[in-house]
Amino acid sequence: MAFPRPKPTTVETLAKERTNAPFNVRKLSIAMHGSERALVLKEKFMAEIARHPAFKLADIHDLSKDELRERTMEKFASMVYFVTTESLETFQLRMQLIGIADPSFWTRFGVAYGLFLGALRSGATPNQLSYWIDKGVLGLNGVIGCFAMTELAHGSNVAGLETTATFDPSSDEFVIHTPHLGATKWWIGGAASTATHAAVFAQLIVGGKKWGVKTFVTQLRDTKTFTLMPGVTIGDIGKKMGRDGIDNGYIQFTYVRVPRAHMLMKHTQVSREGEVTEPPLAQLTYGALLGGRTSMVADSSNSAKKALTVAVRYAAVRRQFSSGKNQLETQILDYPIHQRRLMPLVAQSIAIGFTALKLQTMYEDMTQALDTLEPGDPNLNETLDKLKETHATSAGLKAFCTWAALDTIDKCRQSCGGHGYSAYSNFPLMYADFAVQCTWEGDNTILSLQAGRALIGAWGAAVKGKRLAPGVAYLGIPNILTAKSDSSLSLADIQKAWSCVAANVVKKATEEYLVHLKAGKTKDEAMERCSQSRFIAAKLHTVGYIFAMFSAAVEEMPNNPETDVLKTVCRLYGLWQIEELQGYFLKYGYFSPAQMDKVQDSVDTLCAEVRTVAIPLVDAFALSDHIVNSPLGRFDGSVYESYFAQVQASNPTPKEHPYFNRLIKPLLERENTTYEDAEGAMGLDDELTEMAEERKAAAEHKEGHVRRED
Amino acid sequence: MAFPRPKPTTVETLAKERTNAPFNVRKLSIAMHGSERALVLKEKFMAEIARHPAFKLADIHDLSKDELRERTMEKFASMVYFVTTESLETFQLRMQLIGIADPSFWTRFGVAYGLFLGALRSGATPNQLSYWIDKGVLGLNGVIGCFAMTELAHGSNVAGLETTATFDPSSDEFVIHTPHLGATKWWIGGAASTATHAAVFAQLIVGGKKWGVKTFVTQLRDTKTFTLMPGVTIGDIGKKMGRDGIDNGYIQFTYVRVPRAHMLMKHTQVSREGEVTEPPLAQLTYGALLGGRTSMVADSSNSAKKALTVAVRYAAVRRQFSSGKNQLETQILDYPIHQRRLMPLVAQSIAIGFTALKLQTMYEDMTQALDTLEPGDPNLNETLDKLKETHATSAGLKAFCTWAALDTIDKCRQSCGGHGYSAYSNFPLMYADFAVQCTWEGDNTILSLQAGRALIGAWGAAVKGKRLAPGVAYLGIPNILTAKSDSSLSLADIQKAWSCVAANVVKKATEEYLVHLKAGKTKDEAMERCSQSRFIAAKLHTVGYIFAMFSAAVEEMPNNPETDVLKTVCRLYGLWQIEELQGYFLKYGYFSPAQMDKVQDSVDTLCAEVRTVAIPLVDAFALSDHIVNSPLGRFDGSVYESYFAQVQASNPTPKEHPYFNRLIKPLLERENTTYEDAEGAMGLDDELTEMAEERKAAAEHKEGHVRRED
Repeated sequence: MAFPRPKPTTVETLAKERTNAPFNVRKLSIAMHGSERALVLKEKFMAEIARHPAFKLADIHDLSKDELRERTMEKFASMVYFVTTESLETFQLRMQLIGIADPSFWTRFGVAYGLFLGALRSGATPNQLSYWIDKGVLGLNGVIGCFAMTELAHGSNVAGLETTATFDPSSDEFVIHTPHLGATKWWIGGAASTATHAAVFAQLIVGGKKWGVKTFVTQLRDTKTFTLMPGVTIGDIGKKMGRDGIDNGYIQFTYVRVPRAHMLMKHTQVSREGEVTEPPLAQLTYGALLGGRTSMVADSSNSAKKALTVAVRYAAVRRQFSSGKNQLETQILDYPIHQRRLMPLVAQSIAIGFTALKLQTMYEDMTQALDTLEPGDPNLNETLDKLKETHATSAGLKAFCTWAALDTIDKCRQSCGGHGYSAYSNFPLMYADFAVQCTWEGDNTILSLQAGRALIGAWGAAVKGKRLAPGVAYLGIPNILTAKSDSSLSLADIQKAWSCVAANVVKKATEEYLVHLKAGKTKDEAMERCSQSRFIAAKLHTVGYIFAMFSAAVEEMPNNPETDVLKTVCRLYGLWQIEELQGYFLKYGYFSPAQMDKVQDSVDTLCAEVRTVAIPLVDAFALSDHIVNSPLGRFDGSVYESYFAQVQASNPTPKEHPYFNRLIKPLLERENTTYEDAEGAMGLDDELTEMAEERKAAAEHKEGHVRRED
Repeated sequence: MAFPRPKPTTVETLAKERTNAPFNVRKLSIAMHGSERALVLKEKFMAEIARHPAFKLADIHDLSKDELRERTMEKFASMVYFVTTESLETFQLRMQLIGIADPSFWTRFGVAYGLFLGALRSGATPNQLSYWIDKGVLGLNGVIGCFAMTELAHGSNVAGLETTATFDPSSDEFVIHTPHLGATKWWIGGAASTATHAAVFAQLIVGGKKWGVKTFVTQLRDTKTFTLMPGVTIGDIGKKMGRDGIDNGYIQFTYVRVPRAHMLMKHTQVSREGEVTEPPLAQLTYGALLGGRTSMVADSSNSAKKALTVAVRYAAVRRQFSSGKNQLETQILDYPIHQRRLMPLVAQSIAIGFTALKLQTMYEDMTQALDTLEPGDPNLNETLDKLKETHATSAGLKAFCTWAALDTIDKCRQSCGGHGYSAYSNFPLMYADFAVQCTWEGDNTILSLQAGRALIGAWGAAVKGKRLAPGVAYLGIPNILTAKSDSSLSLADIQKAWSCVAANVVKKATEEYLVHLKAGKTKDEAMERCSQSRFIAAKLHTVGYIFAMFSAAVEEMPNNPETDVLKTVCRLYGLWQIEELQGYFLKYGYFSPAQMDKVQDSVDTLCAEVRTVAIPLVDAFALSDHIVNSPLGRFDGSVYESYFAQVQASNPTPKEHPYFNRLIKPLLERENTTYEDAEGAMGLDDELTEMAEERKAAAEHKEGHVRRED
């Protein structure tokens, strides 16, 4: 464009924001990534995919579902090299990055490696694992796996799945069968057109008896011709809200036979003779599900940071309204209300990021303990405690972090005004892709209630003076229920506030539960009856936990300018969430109404403070323009030029109007028809004509009147 | 499908929910629609479009943007008959229904009739109006209009628009010009490929002086050939989050000449000699914008009701988890937490519906007053008061009602679990289409602040004992600031609670404003500084206002079973919102902590109570299966059969796999390659192989060990 640009340009405005940052952006970035190695690796991954044609992102908003799916498959080949050669830790960091660059591919890939391979890792015997590795599950040269758990009528309730796997001793096989429509396997990522095998969850039936849900590796398609195996019916389940690059499908089995050896038998075994041996500890089989949740906490932070990178940069360069005539308009980030819209969300994304680092460590410890566990192990109880804590903690975190991230994406979109609604802002896709995180791997509400149930248990333990897991140790602090603020609003004061209020709501949930128990309800019924209070307990506990993880991480850091800014951010997070949930802090008297006004003032002040470093702060999120994929969030600030260029590139003018002759011309050239009004009422045309005439008459009358007065 | 169905079927379950409703569904429906006539008309509109091929909805999830746009244009012709023959009132009801059936078409149609024609109605002189009617704006036979206000760099700040319209006295023309990229008209619905004329908002420049933003009807395309007029550059702005059926475009004007008579001159006139006459009351020119906001309150209620119809019916038929072995699983609507997720939202959608009916009346009164207003009118002050109240009230309502509806749609989606993520559930499109309502016609946050500014003004008036508009009369109730609950939680108690707390937060915002004023800030600066408190004031006032409208409507109704259920719903709405915003009620002491616990208990109880009539209640929303367009929300309850049928119909199996040979086969048949590990670390393949070997060794060792012990 040869247009002149108004001064200062958006590029100049953004550059100015980067001068005089009171901290070193790279050092801060390393702190937020957990290590320099993690940051350097991320930069390497970003550079690699930015140059790989399959990872082109600029055009994805205009691709059809079918085109997106084909592109997903193009990415597979490029990743096999890494999965087979990189250490698990490195590969996980790579996948974390892919998760925010391309959630569809991340999922399809995760189905093959996280879920299908994960099912083998946690459920196969050593011989079975070797067998499937030899078949090619790692290199995909022979087996491309998918994970067939969910059914049309059963999602959350895995134990209620209705697909059957009946042992036939005459042939030493299982017969996999879909008994009715509701038992159709549904949502199965990769089933529609790319998987050869599935890990099928089905009710084991041996000798006419049901033994619960087990996993059966079942071949879906011939690996040479890709035709469906006999008895396997597969359909495409089509368009979704987002992640259209995954080929989700449905599967119906009609008496499909699989060898007995294809049931994963690490935990439960079925012998040649049809004897069933059950595992001593059924809960150990669920450990593998927790990996997904853990990675979703990190993904929540990263996705929120991606959205915030766009919203904060755009708010810094967008100017709207000037305070005086002909003055330069104000950067919208300088409006207190806009700081209120974005700065707390920045703080939250950072808080969740630090929590994810801690949770990852907790998860790895637990996995290691589980992997090496044998029956009769002396560490069994300790390992079970670890599993229990990781289970409860990750349930609450998965729920509230994914909700927070989804909310952040939409608030960022709204903060960008109309342009946030353009596909090219990337918010619409971010939202649509992320939305499913609140549902899969456990519906958020249900997971919150699980976390709440564990908290009720923990309160019982606290009352009895039992040893408490670190995450709920605050329940045992003496007099925590009646603690009061010292008015300092320091990190310690904030921490105490969360401990006090979380303890109170956990206590309230427990009391309600006990009232229902005493009234004769079963445990399950009593739990249902107190579910609202249980939900509240989980919410306050989880937010307090995130604050605790963030504040612990900050306290461990050396005294330097980077730590200083993180301390400010941490206070903002803690106080803003207190403000959001102020009812509980007032109800339990930790803060007085006057102190709560001070909390509001402090949040105002902290928002203004964080705003001054907002651009270097989001720069430290270290997300490349390629990953962010939004002209509004360009690192160099050239938002309007980039946006205009992308809109033009994505929407070339067609040579011929696609429907002018068929639809518009007949409308424009239509003869005026006088329609009869079916209702006998005055039509809009009559009304408008009458209005025009009345006004003319009035104007003439007045004119006449004025003249007469002259 | 020949599958057997489990008993009771979903159809039987839903039918059972309709037996023994304690009220007459049709009578309740009439009450919620405002009149029997409104309901009957709606049913007629629904029947008409259900049979019209252009309004087919079952396939829209799989149409491309280009196909959606073409279909939008197909609908135009079918509507012209109605717009020219129906009364405005009937036509508005028709559009309200179209608004939830097909938001894209509603918008494109609204651009032509609501915005373009609206600009003419409010801005044209009588002669100008006649001229454009003769040209064909009503029947679209000659003029298809669009509304060119927003620019790339200016949305909210209309006064800051940068397109110029410079008067050239030599030719008696205006020269419309886009001075730089940021001034490009952007988002213009209909510009990309369907409009012939635009109402262009531009800075009027006469004699080198700027006179502010006025409207200029500018021809974009030749009506015979549809080629662009000289100097007009138009591009397509492409994919959006939703409403892809609208052809939004950008427009750049390069010294485009329009006759002087094409400036709309009802308010400001430019004479042949270049004399500019300005209107005595500039604020009167903004009245027309309020129509959009008013209709958005009704649309918020209707959109929320559509989403809730799906979520509530699905929750009634979906069963998950049984309380005992082999027992029938529980309907998820019977879980207290699921009632908590949906019943308050049902109450809110009804509350907003009644508010919309009241607001519509207020808006019509005001429009009538404005239409007949002449300078020097004795009713001028009263009319200005009405305009002011409608402006402030509609600003707050637009913001909080659209937010509430968007939130409802997403919560409904989440409440349906995984299936809510399927495009065919219709939630994804509902969300994507609705999302823009929070942004256009005034960003919600900015509108909230406008409402808050008006409240600060009203508090000032209350303190001075001045007459208050009905909507803020509560600010003048003696001792309202220190009112206390009588513990009854009756409608009157709830009303007093809202008045008390809203008055307190309005007072707080005012006090903050005054502190900043006294500290020497300008009025605008002081307003910015107190924006968080202003926002809170607007929020509490608006929710209280919605409650007041709902409760007033219910109090006016005759004593009968329909009114009884609405009273229950009204209490649920009021108490649930108190619980949501409990901090303020505790802070200002209207409720004690113990009373607040009682509020929570009451909300639990009311949720359970409304649940018993949930199905007949959503039936009374009177939305046809065609409009709802979601198999999960089928009236007859055949959710899984309908869902499966739609998935199959929308996704036929392709004859040939689209990319098996190109992408999958090479992957499957690849030779095993041993990659060198670049990092020298252990790759995942090594790790897994090692793990398998270790386990084997451990198992053998143990076996040996056990044998030795034998």
